[in-house]
Amino acid sequence: MSSRPWTTAITKVEPNKLLLRGYSIDELMAKASFAEAAYLALTGEMPTPAQARLVNAIFVSSIDHGATPPSALGTMTAASTRASLSAAVAAGLLAITHVHGGAVEGAIRMFADAASRRGAGGPPAEAAAAALDDLKSKGMRAPGFGHRIHTNDPRATELFRLAREARVDGGYLELADAFEKELAARLGKPLPINVDGAIAAVLCELGVPPEMGNAFFIISRVPGLIAHAVEEMTRQKPMRVVDPRNHEYDGPAERKLTDR
Amino acid sequence: MSSRPWTTAITKVEPNKLLLRGYSIDELMAKASFAEAAYLALTGEMPTPAQARLVNAIFVSSIDHGATPPSALGTMTAASTRASLSAAVAAGLLAITHVHGGAVEGAIRMFADAASRRGAGGPPAEAAAAALDDLKSKGMRAPGFGHRIHTNDPRATELFRLAREARVDGGYLELADAFEKELAARLGKPLPINVDGAIAAVLCELGVPPEMGNAFFIISRVPGLIAHAVEEMTRQKPMRVVDPRNHEYDGPAERKLTDR
Amino acid sequence: MSSRPWTTAITKVEPNKLLLRGYSIDELMAKASFAEAAYLALTGEMPTPAQARLVNAIFVSSIDHGATPPSALGTMTAASTRASLSAAVAAGLLAITHVHGGAVEGAIRMFADAASRRGAGGPPAEAAAAALDDLKSKGMRAPGFGHRIHTNDPRATELFRLAREARVDGGYLELADAFEKELAARLGKPLPINVDGAIAAVLCELGVPPEMGNAFFIISRVPGLIAHAVEEMTRQKPMRVVDPRNHEYDGPAERKLTDR
Amino acid sequence: MSSRPWTTAITKVEPNKLLLRGYSIDELMAKASFAEAAYLALTGEMPTPAQARLVNAIFVSSIDHGATPPSALGTMTAASTRASLSAAVAAGLLAITHVHGGAVEGAIRMFADAASRRGAGGPPAEAAAAALDDLKSKGMRAPGFGHRIHTNDPRATELFRLAREARVDGGYLELADAFEKELAARLGKPLPINVDGAIAAVLCELGVPPEMGNAFFIISRVPGLIAHAVEEMTRQKPMRVVDPRNHEYDGPAERKLTDR
Repeated sequence: MSSRPWTTAITKVEPNKLLLRGYSIDELMAKASFAEAAYLALTGEMPTPAQARLVNAIFVSSIDHGATPPSALGTMTAASTRASLSAAVAAGLLAITHVHGGAVEGAIRMFADAASRRGAGGPPAEAAAAALDDLKSKGMRAPGFGHRIHTNDPRATELFRLAREARVDGGYLELADAFEKELAARLGKPLPINVDGAIAAVLCELGVPPEMGNAFFIISRVPGLIAHAVEEMTRQKPMRVVDPRNHEYDGPAERKLTDR
Repeated sequence: MSSRPWTTAITKVEPNKLLLRGYSIDELMAKASFAEAAYLALTGEMPTPAQARLVNAIFVSSIDHGATPPSALGTMTAASTRASLSAAVAAGLLAITHVHGGAVEGAIRMFADAASRRGAGGPPAEAAAAALDDLKSKGMRAPGFGHRIHTNDPRATELFRLAREARVDGGYLELADAFEKELAARLGKPLPINVDGAIAAVLCELGVPPEMGNAFFIISRVPGLIAHAVEEMTRQKPMRVVDPRNHEYDGPAERKLTDR
Repeated sequence: MSSRPWTTAITKVEPNKLLLRGYSIDELMAKASFAEAAYLALTGEMPTPAQARLVNAIFVSSIDHGATPPSALGTMTAASTRASLSAAVAAGLLAITHVHGGAVEGAIRMFADAASRRGAGGPPAEAAAAALDDLKSKGMRAPGFGHRIHTNDPRATELFRLAREARVDGGYLELADAFEKELAARLGKPLPINVDGAIAAVLCELGVPPEMGNAFFIISRVPGLIAHAVEEMTRQKPMRVVDPRNHEYDGPAERKLTDR
Repeated sequence: MSSRPWTTAITKVEPNKLLLRGYSIDELMAKASFAEAAYLALTGEMPTPAQARLVNAIFVSSIDHGATPPSALGTMTAASTRASLSAAVAAGLLAITHVHGGAVEGAIRMFADAASRRGAGGPPAEAAAAALDDLKSKGMRAPGFGHRIHTNDPRATELFRLAREARVDGGYLELADAFEKELAARLGKPLPINVDGAIAAVLCELGVPPEMGNAFFIISRVPGLIAHAVEEMTRQKPMRVVDPRNHEYDGPAERKLTDR
């Protein structure tokens, strides 16, 4: 019974005082954005302002993708039976795996592998080719490339634009380009980078380790899953059949933030 | 097979184009904070800058509370068996109920009940007393008051400070005070408002409906759950016994954001 | 740290020895059926042979209901992303609530309420009517009656036949009949008892308390959920869209156990 | 919208008629044990009486292992917050992975690998050694051997006894022995087969494919998880801290089935 205490480095809890990674929670509430605080919780350190802008963009990028992803269907299915909100979100999360939303970890490993092959500055094309050969020899496909719907994933495009604007430059953006070119050459048709792949490349630039990669997609998608759960519970009858094909969008027409 | 399509108002998905509640996802990635985008996903509208500051503070407030809450223990227990990151988070979410993190919905209903009793401007003390009598007659306790550890929850204090600073004033802040006074009088000892109660009062000010109340705690806590899952997987051996009592904090000493 | 130990009455674990509710696990493996052992785990006592036959029939009755129930869809959706088998089952379980598979608890309470109104032997019709009036005054519907597909649920019919054969007779079978008649009279059309309602009536005969009622459906359905998960993983491609309407049965044609 | 229907071979659902793998559900309710029906649901065929006895023993063997396994702790933690019964079970299932309860699949693969190396009848010792070498070269440990508590797992012993009694003889029982001997020789101390390993060897004898292996542990453990959930909800206060170390058994003293 008298085993040595184990240790945790996340939050220090005392009566009437909470320190997250050393920072007082009330100071964070007033001065940190949720994206910064989430990054702090995950990595142990606050991001720089330039990093924070990218982290925020990552979290915003994957907040929802409509009613067809398996995670949304899992959440709506549970919500159709009037499960609790947290249970409905949990049901959706269980559909987030390496084939849906969970390709970030694998893509970080693939990019890191190519970066280490590249070493002191070899050409990115050769490094990408060698990393892809290695995956192929294991019977694996390149994680983070290709999308059911988008031929040019707008979230990837914008994330790379912001990363270039922020002048992060550890070589991972050009590596991602090299993978895209190499994949197109091998397949004889484009297999463009998707949002998972773009998140992975930017997280490589930030130095986030692979085992934390999928965290960003999960955090990002939870508000979307909740929106689907609440919509199901408020707009639909219990036990209705959630048809993943036969639905239409009836929300607001396109508008601009500047219109506000 | 040819049933009428059902409708969803959250996201419009087209090839290479995503509109969240009408706003283009790439515009949101560059110009909106994650807190704003999450609020947009949930409620359908962007918050004003003053509202956004409060929404952000809510999301930051509950990001983690150390290793003892049931949600953290649920996540660490699954992570100790090397479940996937999304499964470990799901396991933790399943411990978020009306008795842990899920008191926001009930508190919103209680405050709204008191506000409607108060009508055009009666004294908040009477409305609080009537609402508490009604709960008592149903054998229920007031949600959002009292805490295992904090006699003065620093998150509630800061959230109210920020709400007063933002000059929101629909009467819910003074109602919350009235409940606190009435509860203390009835119990003969203080039962101070906790972070759930404070979030509920501020969400009432923002006009968020009760069925969406628990969403804010869930979104807030997910980064903390992930931090515990990753810490478990990287610092501890598989299948170790997660002892909820016998642990110590070994993270950074107290520091200030201004020290950065 | 030195708090008093808490207690559990389920299993005594010693090195090389396991006692489930007092019975050695190896004796149970050789001499008890899984239905008996599950009943023992839940209730603390072995059923009599007559009870065991009913408990077994309950567990068999709800083992699967095809691909359209929300629990099956939740499991298949997670399995389509190649979640682990346990995660896929968990996703399906999260869709088991009071509106799907979880009506047993409510039906036990309703039957118990009617039985106590009936007291020493009043007419079942009056007791059923009073219990239904009470539910109606709370805005609730009678749990355990009506089905999306079956006008005469074959599982309920067989369960009642077996119960009559077993000569259980605490009055709950005739009470269930009385509810069915009263509901038909009120609605002007039949609303026949479904498998949840029949399970509830038989569990009342066995003396199982309401808080344990939903356990029987959950235990029963898990093998079916696993069958759907394995079928999804072995017969379908990852990320295929699980369409709840457009599917056909391609399994064995009708056959008899006596054909074996 | 007019895609070809997909197919499922598990259950044929028609109004007032249910066929599980071709057998009418009411015939199964009266004539099949739950273990047989679960096996039918999983594999598509009824077991022979000799197989049914082993399948039943497998399901009984793992029904519970007290309050310390991660799955029990996950279920109790969720139940301590008064999550629904199905959510509490789901939380526990999420802790069933390759390191807890989910070693059956890996052990089936390992035994099948050794069996194919053995071919037409080579010595089991050489086949086991070769299979262990192969695992070692991949940095993996032998699944299904060793236990935190038992040096001689009573469930494995009894399962092998029943298998020998049933005269199943595809060579997997002697292969399992060969692995145990080889592991002891390599480690210089015994690493006896555990219940996962024994289940795997018996499932190999039954011809159950590896992807179905973990199903048997999951089905078996669900009643135990429910017993813990109900005990938590009925004997303990909400939000109590579930201490995995400091507890005692207070159930019935040892008794015999023949005492009934």
